[in-house]
Amino acid sequence: MEKKADIAVIGLAVMGQNLILNMNDHGYTVVAFNRTVSKVDDFLKNAAKGTNVIGAHSIEEMVSLLKVPRKVMLMVKAGDPVDAEIQKLLKYLSPGDCIIDGGNSHFTDTIRRTKYLEENGILYIGAGVSGGEEGARRGPSIMPGGNEKAWPLVKDIFKAISAKTPDGVPCCDWVGSDGAGHYVKMAHNAIEYGDIQVICEAYHLMKLGLGLSADQMHQIFAEWNTTELNSYLIEITRDILAYKDDDGEPLVEKILDKAGQKGTGKWFIVNSLDLGIPVTLISESVYARCLSALKEERIKASEVLKGPVTHFKGDAKGLVEDIRKALLASKIISYTQGFMCLHEAAKEYGWDLDYGNIALLWRNGCIIRSAFLDKIKNAYEKNPKLSNLLLDDYFREVIDDCQASWRKVIMTAVELGIPMPSFSSALAFFDGYRCAKLPVNLLQAMRDYFGAHTYKRIDAPADQVFHTNWTGRGGDVASGTYTV
Amino acid sequence: MEKKADIAVIGLAVMGQNLILNMNDHGYTVVAFNRTVSKVDDFLKNAAKGTNVIGAHSIEEMVSLLKVPRKVMLMVKAGDPVDAEIQKLLKYLSPGDCIIDGGNSHFTDTIRRTKYLEENGILYIGAGVSGGEEGARRGPSIMPGGNEKAWPLVKDIFKAISAKTPDGVPCCDWVGSDGAGHYVKMAHNAIEYGDIQVICEAYHLMKLGLGLSADQMHQIFAEWNTTELNSYLIEITRDILAYKDDDGEPLVEKILDKAGQKGTGKWFIVNSLDLGIPVTLISESVYARCLSALKEERIKASEVLKGPVTHFKGDAKGLVEDIRKALLASKIISYTQGFMCLHEAAKEYGWDLDYGNIALLWRNGCIIRSAFLDKIKNAYEKNPKLSNLLLDDYFREVIDDCQASWRKVIMTAVELGIPMPSFSSALAFFDGYRCAKLPVNLLQAMRDYFGAHTYKRIDAPADQVFHTNWTGRGGDVASGTYTV
Repeated sequence: MEKKADIAVIGLAVMGQNLILNMNDHGYTVVAFNRTVSKVDDFLKNAAKGTNVIGAHSIEEMVSLLKVPRKVMLMVKAGDPVDAEIQKLLKYLSPGDCIIDGGNSHFTDTIRRTKYLEENGILYIGAGVSGGEEGARRGPSIMPGGNEKAWPLVKDIFKAISAKTPDGVPCCDWVGSDGAGHYVKMAHNAIEYGDIQVICEAYHLMKLGLGLSADQMHQIFAEWNTTELNSYLIEITRDILAYKDDDGEPLVEKILDKAGQKGTGKWFIVNSLDLGIPVTLISESVYARCLSALKEERIKASEVLKGPVTHFKGDAKGLVEDIRKALLASKIISYTQGFMCLHEAAKEYGWDLDYGNIALLWRNGCIIRSAFLDKIKNAYEKNPKLSNLLLDDYFREVIDDCQASWRKVIMTAVELGIPMPSFSSALAFFDGYRCAKLPVNLLQAMRDYFGAHTYKRIDAPADQVFHTNWTGRGGDVASGTYTV
Repeated sequence: MEKKADIAVIGLAVMGQNLILNMNDHGYTVVAFNRTVSKVDDFLKNAAKGTNVIGAHSIEEMVSLLKVPRKVMLMVKAGDPVDAEIQKLLKYLSPGDCIIDGGNSHFTDTIRRTKYLEENGILYIGAGVSGGEEGARRGPSIMPGGNEKAWPLVKDIFKAISAKTPDGVPCCDWVGSDGAGHYVKMAHNAIEYGDIQVICEAYHLMKLGLGLSADQMHQIFAEWNTTELNSYLIEITRDILAYKDDDGEPLVEKILDKAGQKGTGKWFIVNSLDLGIPVTLISESVYARCLSALKEERIKASEVLKGPVTHFKGDAKGLVEDIRKALLASKIISYTQGFMCLHEAAKEYGWDLDYGNIALLWRNGCIIRSAFLDKIKNAYEKNPKLSNLLLDDYFREVIDDCQASWRKVIMTAVELGIPMPSFSSALAFFDGYRCAKLPVNLLQAMRDYFGAHTYKRIDAPADQVFHTNWTGRGGDVASGTYTV
């Protein structure tokens, strides 16, 4: 063996295979390895036939085939398997070598691993990779974070294989230290939950409320894709609605309406509660999947719980345009909430995030890719200190333009008894966010009444707390460490 | 010292002090101890003056003063302090003695501690105690779970000091093994978040939409408290609205609208995601507190983000009654979601929960005490196998009666731009729960399109999965262990 390979990839599920073929297309020599070694031979005999991909049958062999400093990318299941592979690799790697985790790891694991490997002289990158199998094959969005000294080692390969924006900028750039890359990937997936859910709700209202066929909705999504909504998810919805089953009927209507949730959507919600950021739309989207999973209960409930007649009587064409605007407004709220978490996470975990650049990373290659992301990039370019997307002129004006339609759509859905949890929670968030005074004064009074939790006053310094003996019967002992 | 004491309590914050005085009232001799020993003397000189309470100045002394088998109740901050106290106690306790944790511990900690102490021969109880300082003093709701052998040791004391239902039944009974008691307390607190939030939203709509004064709302809540809404929280809202500041103005309007969330509400949401139960109303309630905390941002946003005119033009009195009905319907959804978690948790953690009995434990003494809970008790009495509260005839009929008002209130709030996140999410849940078919078929199609995640069909066996090559360009490799 004369020529040594540029990078190794461990894990030959669909994402790993496709990333390898993508690297090969760009002139890199890749060593492929998999714990179940027969998968290596299968891969070389089939998908990788005729390429320069080299198969390794042990980690030792794999490492021996690599140029120094060695670059090893893990495409294995997140969690323990990543730690297990790292332990195996540590036996064969040398100081200055680099391990990249391209899986969906939790950012706190990546923080831990970056530190651990730094102590062992190994450079570590946790890279979010998005785009599904197509993206991995033809150009994913790549969000690398970790030990910044590792970045020059893989920068060229990652930028080469990544997606490009319409004007040619790679959708791959350094995100920040330790877990920043995986955090941004988690935020991406959470926003993906939201984007998908709002599309589903729009489809549901058109189907039930307006009685539109899949073909009619195919046309509508095709039109929407030429507007501000232009995006990958609107595009595939358009295609899915046109796809016919063997009997000529729309395939989508034959698909079971049950979905799972166990991954990054849940992580994001847990993190949002740690950070204290109200990601209500994303939360409703995750719960919508939970509710969908209770299919048998829902069937039973549908037989006994009655609601209004679901058919809309009015200007159907007008309502479709209202739905488009409501979808756009809801989407803006979803991204607003997602970026609020990014801002707070940067503070909490000490990352120096470039928010406009993050929008650019998602501009192509990944599931949430859209023209819309340019607007976010622009907003942060205009004002790098922008504290909230809703305060940007462009987004404020779009919401102004959409607001009446947004309200009308939700009122219609409420009247017809068609659930639109994400649209509704998005509007409630918007109306709450622009409330200088929320009814939480009453809440604080209640907590002081029943639990002596104390409260602050609008007309007193921020550090001064008060307790009122509301009944004349409670004691004067304020609640200290013990919280009910 | 001749007479030995019945029980010791460690931790003299307001809850610990009040529980001790409550036990003393019922003829029990209590030893009081606190890590900061000066608090013991303060307590004996002040609140406990003239009682039979004994002060201890060390754990050793405290233990020596107790009847065998010894009963020691911890009223310390949840988390590490509980483990620290357990370690200290283990040096002095003997097999057969009993430790009771009356704090707000996470149920998984209680599962761990029950097992650990069982291995050490000590009987452990994790008891949820609710009712705030008033409840602790005059009769709290107590939810004990843990090692069932410990129950006979403390049953009499706990039942004596607990609240009683109007017909005299103690709001204290054995909940189940290991963490069941603390789980039920967590569910109680989560439901409390929901109950408080829906009241705040009702208040907000009456204040902004109808321009009602605190005095007018005081009257309304007083009336509501004579209806199905009769409850402690409605009662204290009534009182709070009537409470005047020194200048004669309603105090509630001077209170700062910023609240925190870090406790059991968050725990409950994380757990609901583990269990896959959509507790959307509670989630919106927790996030409403997060949003309230962003006060400075909201003030800034209120100056630039415009909405409709918030004043309602129509039958104000009619709307008040609609709000009452909408509040009742939303409350039913909140309890429905809470009990869905209890059902799923019982399956997941192996608890044999008596749901009607749990409703009875909350019937008095605790923050969510209400006449409403009798209806839940009745529902499970009529049908112990009831799978969901919404399927009970009583609740179904109440929702039928409230439904038009509920929809009208949300439509009004949406039109006026007044945020009602919990009312809205409750209705969206109701409309989703009674949907035999949700739009998740489209979601599953999308996930199969971009990630080869496969889907199931409505016309194929439940264990059969399908993958479609939607574009004709994707590969045939289904996504395996690697999930994007």
